[in-house]
Formats: sequence, structure tokens, C-alpha cells
Amino acid sequence: MANHPTLAPELDVSAWLNTATPLSLQALRGKVVVIHAFQMLCPGCVSHGIPQTKKIRETFREEDVAVIGLHSVFEHHDVMTPRALEVFLHEYRIAFPIAIDRPTGHGGVPRTMARYQLRGTPSLLLIDRHGYLRFHHFGHVDDLRVGAQIAQLLAEGAAIAAAPAPAAARAGCDDQACGIAATP
Amino acid sequence: MANHPTLAPELDVSAWLNTATPLSLQALRGKVVVIHAFQMLCPGCVSHGIPQTKKIRETFREEDVAVIGLHSVFEHHDVMTPRALEVFLHEYRIAFPIAIDRPTGHGGVPRTMARYQLRGTPSLLLIDRHGYLRFHHFGHVDDLRVGAQIAQLLAEGAAIAAAPAPAAARAGCDDQACGIAATP
Amino acid sequence: MANHPTLAPELDVSAWLNTATPLSLQALRGKVVVIHAFQMLCPGCVSHGIPQTKKIRETFREEDVAVIGLHSVFEHHDVMTPRALEVFLHEYRIAFPIAIDRPTGHGGVPRTMARYQLRGTPSLLLIDRHGYLRFHHFGHVDDLRVGAQIAQLLAEGAAIAAAPAPAAARAGCDDQACGIAATP
Amino acid sequence: MANHPTLAPELDVSAWLNTATPLSLQALRGKVVVIHAFQMLCPGCVSHGIPQTKKIRETFREEDVAVIGLHSVFEHHDVMTPRALEVFLHEYRIAFPIAIDRPTGHGGVPRTMARYQLRGTPSLLLIDRHGYLRFHHFGHVDDLRVGAQIAQLLAEGAAIAAAPAPAAARAGCDDQACGIAATP
Repeated sequence: MANHPTLAPELDVSAWLNTATPLSLQALRGKVVVIHAFQMLCPGCVSHGIPQTKKIRETFREEDVAVIGLHSVFEHHDVMTPRALEVFLHEYRIAFPIAIDRPTGHGGVPRTMARYQLRGTPSLLLIDRHGYLRFHHFGHVDDLRVGAQIAQLLAEGAAIAAAPAPAAARAGCDDQACGIAATP
Repeated sequence: MANHPTLAPELDVSAWLNTATPLSLQALRGKVVVIHAFQMLCPGCVSHGIPQTKKIRETFREEDVAVIGLHSVFEHHDVMTPRALEVFLHEYRIAFPIAIDRPTGHGGVPRTMARYQLRGTPSLLLIDRHGYLRFHHFGHVDDLRVGAQIAQLLAEGAAIAAAPAPAAARAGCDDQACGIAATP
Repeated sequence: MANHPTLAPELDVSAWLNTATPLSLQALRGKVVVIHAFQMLCPGCVSHGIPQTKKIRETFREEDVAVIGLHSVFEHHDVMTPRALEVFLHEYRIAFPIAIDRPTGHGGVPRTMARYQLRGTPSLLLIDRHGYLRFHHFGHVDDLRVGAQIAQLLAEGAAIAAAPAPAAARAGCDDQACGIAATP
Repeated sequence: MANHPTLAPELDVSAWLNTATPLSLQALRGKVVVIHAFQMLCPGCVSHGIPQTKKIRETFREEDVAVIGLHSVFEHHDVMTPRALEVFLHEYRIAFPIAIDRPTGHGGVPRTMARYQLRGTPSLLLIDRHGYLRFHHFGHVDDLRVGAQIAQLLAEGAAIAAAPAPAAARAGCDDQACGIAATP
């Protein structure tokens, strides 16, 4: 990721859940957009990322902050299917819109995950009102810090700050995160 | 469940994971047997039941206590498949033997779950050295109490105490448990 | 508390700990000021308020945000003495400046606590760069929300928003907070 | 501690709280006795030891298991006074009997703590029905294990097993425990 924030690339999505109409970053300009990239069988996503994202949804108003879950399956595609995801969302009572990251058709990292150069799941992306990607976290990030970063973006007019360096890569899953072996 | 403990019925299992050879309660006589009935997409199982069962495995010796996970799928059979379970066990680093409760072939409550009249998942079953079902918990049960009950069974010779009454039924999933709508 | 924020009254302090020189809100103008009012024997302060305040200190820069602990003893004055507080700060490794709220000399609610009409402990006060009291929480408040509120104040120039209504009063201590019986 | 369990020495106590009459180990023969040695300003005692001891009290019957808190002040004697302890017990809603370990009169490790060669606080002592000290933990110990050990002692007739080796010493307080600098 460059020192100067770049426009967040549009999501490449094969299907949407929990929303009547597909969303687009373009159409969400004017709001701060929070994207939580997860996999339904990633332990760190289930124990930390999903609860944090639910809390973000409860804390901020829908007219100010859009919250999107991005199901970015980069391993075990055969079992983390759209139908399995539906059951997961039902059992975990997840009500915010969920984008299914478009698979390549030959396994591996899906389209949006590649565009954003995500290191694995959970990843948290914060996009400002003008569509710029401003914060990019991989793994556990503290609620206090996330709340502050969202509020910072909410408070801004047009100012654009440098994005932080991405976290060091981790391969495989631990309690906190699932990392991909090599950055695409 | 009767006031007088009954012999624990044998497990009816369609496949075993994490073990080279199938287990049977008959062959485990002499040990205390802990069975954790779960579903891989049950939130209370993932947040509480699985970690507790791992801790049981770490706390007691294998020559004294056998620990078995029982995957009793009673809903959403199409996505909680044996292959999906394999991925779940891998991601959550579950190493103790797992029995896949035999499905009926037409959905609903699987065979072992029916035999034991489980109310849902997570359920914890404690079987004494003589094969009698002695404790039966549905939903959250405290570590201190579980530790005490296992140790009580370990300490016994042939004495058999009355089993406690089962917990009240709950239908659907909440944070603690997934209940079946009607007791079979 | 009025709908329009008021200038935060100056702290009335009998002693300072963890700082070479006394602090004053007047001298801190230009920074956001976080005041955590606590009692060393208040369970909700120890389990939640103090750890949250430590995390605030770690998350924001000292040049942007001042963090002050305010020891507002309104009961059991004979045992929550300055000397006992020193030991508490040492054992709990609290390094940010601590103000000892000035006692009245005849028990009850100390001076600063009365000025701010605190309902009990823990209370969290957020003061903007211009010295206005902007947020006032009693009891448990979520990290995500606190992070957002501090960042909102950091981002502001001169804008002043309405403060939220105070929480309902609680008398006595529970796991979350110690409330005073009647609002002064 | 020797390989063969020794009779637990009698408590040397300057005062009792939460009990109408003083207790003695001699008079408690026939019950399993749980002693939680703590200091009211020890972080690990407050966050872990005290809640665990409360849970022990709730889990086992009073006719089977006696639970005693032992306030063993080995530092900061001037602020952890009997009167301060009374306030602490009130605020933390601790209802089981509390023994105040008899101070030496010239600071340092109090009498019972010395007799038992405690390494610091929290320490958990488990005494069997015959008055033998059977388990001795310093610092954090898991609920599952403690539950099992208490139940093991409850189940016993006269058998006496070897006590485990004490944990390694730690000096000063960390999140888990307060250790004394040198073993007496």
C-alpha cells in the first residue's frame, strides 16, 4: 500500500446477502465505509472480528457509516459455500449486508481480496467519505482504536492522511487470524 | 432420563475422525468417558463447549478419561457435512476423536442424539467406569462443576448415584445453545 | 446537565500523584482531556474503568490527549486514604497523573465530584480542546464508543455539540459501578 | 513441601470476619477445607482468586466443603488494615468466613503464611477430610483442575496421595500474583 491513500477499488462480488439491492462503494460516497473481510471458519473472525463488526454497526448511525461483511474465501472453497454462509449468518445472527467475494474459478485468493492485497482474515478496511482507503488492519485490532479511526473519518471534510503500513504477514490460522502464505 | 442411571447406549456413528480405529463405549469400560455433542455452526459450542472440552482433554490423563466429540447435526445437514467438519477441526485445532452421529437419511435428529434424548447442542455427557450415564448437561455448564463431576466419577469404585434432571428445553439457537423444537 | 455544554469547572484537588507538578484544566487547553473518576475499592472501576483508562493512555498521543485519574472518595474515607491510594497505584501499575479529589472535611461527596454532579464511580468525563465538558458517562461504557468520542473531540476545531443526558442513577455498588444514593 | 502430605498446621489468626465464632481446622475435620490466601490490593487475587473462591463456595455444599479466605498481608501493612478489609469484603460482596493472618508485629510475612511457606498471593490450599494438606497452588490455577481436586478429596476415605511440587517463586506483583522476595 502506498504512503498516499488510494481510491478504494470497487468490490467484485458474486452475490450479496442481507440486502435487497447490491451495494457499491461508488454509491456509498459521502459515508464512511467499514469492510470486515472474513471467512466463516476462521477462528479469529468468529471470536473477535464478527463481534467487533456487530458492535460497530450498533455504535454508529446507518446514515453516517456503512458496514459490509466481505466473505473472502481463500482456502477450503468446497465447504465455505454461499449456502453454508447463509446458515452461518443465521446462526450467528448477523444482519448487516454481506458481499461474497468473487472466486477466481480455480481456487485461491478471490477477486476483491486480491485487489486490496489483503493478507488474510480477519481484515478490517476503513474507507473515508471520499472513497479513499485510509486504514487497513490484519488480525486483531483494539475496539478503542477502531472507534477512534472511524470517528476521525466521520469528522473529516476533505483532508487525506497517509495510511499506516500493513501488518506483518502470517501464514496459516492462529487464534487471531488466518494468513495467506504469500502476498499476491 | 430416569432417576436411576442407565447404561449409556452405544454410539451409532457413520464415521470417525482423529482416530485410526473406531471407538466404542464397550471398549472404553474402565475409563470415565466424556462426550461433547456439538454442531460446527452452533455458536455456544464454538465459544464455550469446544474450549471446555479441549481443557478437559488437557487436564485429565488419557488412561483415565476418554474424550469424544460427537457431531450431532440436527439442522442444516446440507452444509455441516463430514468434509466441512474436517475443515472445522483443522482450523480450530481439535485433536481428540470425533464421532459423526449417524444421520437418519431423511433429516432431523441423528441416531445417537435420539438414543440419548439430547435436547440440542452443546450437550455434555459423563459416563462412569462401568458404562453408566451419570451426568447430562445441556447448554453452558461451569468448568468448576464439570471438573468436580469428572473427578467424582474417577474416584468411584462401583457406587452409582442418581443423575440430575435434564435442563429445560429451548428451541432454536441462542448464544449458549441450539435446542431442538420438540423432544423426540 | 444542560443541553448546551458548559465550561468544565476546574478540578479541586488536595494532592497529585504520578506528576511532578499539579495539572489544571486551564493549562491543558488545546488538548482533549479524559478524566476517569474512580475509587480504589470500587469493583467496576478496578475491573473496567481503570483498564479502559490505561488503554486510552496507550492509544492516543500525550500531546493530543491528557489522561487524568480523579480519586473521588465519597464513602469509606477512613480506608481509601492517600497512602492507600499510593499502594493501589503501585500494585495496579497505574502511571498516569492522579488527582485526589478534595474532601469536605466532614465526609460525603468531595469537592470536584460535587462540582461535576457525578453520580458515582466509575465516571468518565471528556473535555474538548476549548475546555467544554462534552461527554459524561456513569458506569460501563464501551471502548468503541469512547474511542469514537475522543477522536471526535480531537478532530474538532471550535464546533460544540450538545452533551448527552446523564445515565439513570444507581445507589450502591454493583459489578459495574458505585452509585451515590442521591444526586447532590 | 515434602513428598508425603503433612497435617495442615492450625491457622494463626488475629481476627475473624463473616463468622460469629472462630473456625479451626481441628473442628473442621471431616470436611474438605479450601483456603484462599489473598491480599485485598493484589490484582491477581481480585481478578481471579476471589471470583474462583466465590464459585467454589457456590458449587459445593457447606456440609461437605469449608471455604475460608485468609488475608495474609506481607507488604503495605499500614493500608491493608482490618478496617480496610471490612470495606473490601463489603464492596466485593464476599460472604464466606475470612481469617486475618496474625501479623508478626514487625512487618513482613504473617504467622500462618510462614507456617505454610506460602510463596505469595493468591495461594490456594486444599486440605482433606483428615486434615492433611494435599494441594498447594501459587498464582493462577484453572477452575477445571480445582474442581477436580476438591472432588477427589471429597470422594476419598483415608487414602493419602503425594502433594505436587510448589510453583516456582516470583518476586513482586504481576497480573497473576504477588510473590514474596525470598522463601522464608
